[in-house]
Amino acid sequence: MLRTILWRDDKVAMIDQTKLPGTLEYVEYDDYKGVADAIRNLVIRGAPAIGIAAAFGMVLAARQSQAETLEDLLHDLNVARMHLGETRPTAVNLVWALNKIYDTARLSADPNTARTAVFDQALSMAEDDITTNKTMGRNGSQLFNDGDTIMTHCNAGALATVGYGTALGVIRATKDSGKSVQVVATETRPVQQGSRLTAFELMHDNIDVSLIPDTAVGYAMANRLIDKVVVGADRILSTGHVYNKIGTYQVATMARQHGIPFYVAAPLSTFDMESEPKDVVIEMRRSMEVSGPPGNRTAPEGINVLNPAFDMTPPELVSGIITEAGVATTPYVESIKKLFKANF
Amino acid sequence: MLRTILWRDDKVAMIDQTKLPGTLEYVEYDDYKGVADAIRNLVIRGAPAIGIAAAFGMVLAARQSQAETLEDLLHDLNVARMHLGETRPTAVNLVWALNKIYDTARLSADPNTARTAVFDQALSMAEDDITTNKTMGRNGSQLFNDGDTIMTHCNAGALATVGYGTALGVIRATKDSGKSVQVVATETRPVQQGSRLTAFELMHDNIDVSLIPDTAVGYAMANRLIDKVVVGADRILSTGHVYNKIGTYQVATMARQHGIPFYVAAPLSTFDMESEPKDVVIEMRRSMEVSGPPGNRTAPEGINVLNPAFDMTPPELVSGIITEAGVATTPYVESIKKLFKANF
Repeated sequence: MLRTILWRDDKVAMIDQTKLPGTLEYVEYDDYKGVADAIRNLVIRGAPAIGIAAAFGMVLAARQSQAETLEDLLHDLNVARMHLGETRPTAVNLVWALNKIYDTARLSADPNTARTAVFDQALSMAEDDITTNKTMGRNGSQLFNDGDTIMTHCNAGALATVGYGTALGVIRATKDSGKSVQVVATETRPVQQGSRLTAFELMHDNIDVSLIPDTAVGYAMANRLIDKVVVGADRILSTGHVYNKIGTYQVATMARQHGIPFYVAAPLSTFDMESEPKDVVIEMRRSMEVSGPPGNRTAPEGINVLNPAFDMTPPELVSGIITEAGVATTPYVESIKKLFKANF
Repeated sequence: MLRTILWRDDKVAMIDQTKLPGTLEYVEYDDYKGVADAIRNLVIRGAPAIGIAAAFGMVLAARQSQAETLEDLLHDLNVARMHLGETRPTAVNLVWALNKIYDTARLSADPNTARTAVFDQALSMAEDDITTNKTMGRNGSQLFNDGDTIMTHCNAGALATVGYGTALGVIRATKDSGKSVQVVATETRPVQQGSRLTAFELMHDNIDVSLIPDTAVGYAMANRLIDKVVVGADRILSTGHVYNKIGTYQVATMARQHGIPFYVAAPLSTFDMESEPKDVVIEMRRSMEVSGPPGNRTAPEGINVLNPAFDMTPPELVSGIITEAGVATTPYVESIKKLFKANF
């Protein structure tokens, strides 16, 4: 199994996803600021993976800190939390993980106990991520039939998590349950996580996968090539509004147009039970991701570019939200509340 | 004004669109097989431009032919017609132009008269294309308001025609009528005619244009950034079914979802009054357009790719079809019939 992020030799090691699909190699960090840059530059991406990377970033910050009192350590951790927290604004797992680590330190008796405790907490969160994904996968696999062709958008796979994946975890679990599945992956411009990452990791695991440009979603559905859709999420509100990679909203709309079930798979740590749609900041990324880098431009110099990283899919387009605690369905407000009650 | 294709020095010259937006240069052909390769390799593309390129290809074939009888010339022209006709299967203007030139030769008295007649016919078709686009533009401009932000997909511009453009011709005419307009161009993967061509030619003409990835159509509409949509077409059936660049169908669906008018602009030569949807061949293109070329792959080696060049937008998603003979609206069967009656 591909392992996206792990702790080894007093460093955090992660697959450098900017080098995929050509090269599979790990890059190591012993400085929390390096981890922040890695998150910002998409060396690691995917909401759950970002959360764990941030947690290990906090472990590094705790070790880098010279603090001799808990108060001083908490000060240093808070600086690191703010630095790591501003790398990507949309994925809620980032804030969830940072707060979880910070609170672990805060509840410790002294700085050295705190350093040990945050390390144990981060390791346990990383292992929990895989366990959560496997449980989520089993829950979701019951929604898919033998022979289904499943469309997915972006990468909500092993590479978006510590391992196994959320949406792709559901596909793996469906296959592991003995059902035959085929996958259609969208390219997912501008950064192409569909072609670079999803196609890569499914081929790596011998799962049948075909690639389409994002423009061919409607064609594929109109020509009855798709039975179901499953995607991940970067944030889900208590109302069932789903924030995910740009283009998800139109995939969901096309699915509805063709009566194709559209599922979202995400752990409970992806839910934001406080915010309303107006509160959610959509990250705007650099125009160069769309216009091409200098020397290899595909758009004229000086062109205006609008490059939002995420969009919002309203709950009425979502057939079900698959979590480790069960599958939420409409009406989402009640259904999501129940999952949280069952789990805590 | 950008002139996509013209006759000069006994050769057909066309802008090499594979070099845009970086380099604006003309390439010349004195051999009809070279023209066929140019069409196949997207040196020239866009349904109306392809038609004119094919017409000039037939002129070259007539000149290359050593035939001394009309019968022999018609034989050679028929070979050229078949060779040029199989370059791209979806655009109906290609067949229309080839037949028009062939018929011109067929009705001539002798081979030399035929050679002159097909040359005059091709020149006149090229000039007609610009006139048609300007008339179409005026007809369409009445549908747009001062201050509108107009989304377009792919390139239905000067570069898709001899000059001025169909969808972009409507935008140019709207601006020329004194209304202020802004354009949002989709990137249009996999070959990126939106970023490479539409953005280029609108900036060239000082029209305000912004670029978005194809995944951001839903985002742009949901955030009320778009007032109207206008696209071109490669083939329109008598029922109003529109075949256009892959992704058009989902742009139309998203427009309907948001109550945004969706217009198609195309000359009457783009209409196929004979075929039904089941008859239309959708061109499948090379996987490398999606997976990237060797040495610069964005998808793993050996990945399956589905790369259809066009999709079909059903008439119920189309708010109006703008032609040089007027604007067709639902019910399309009658409305389109009327435009043809008025024009011939």
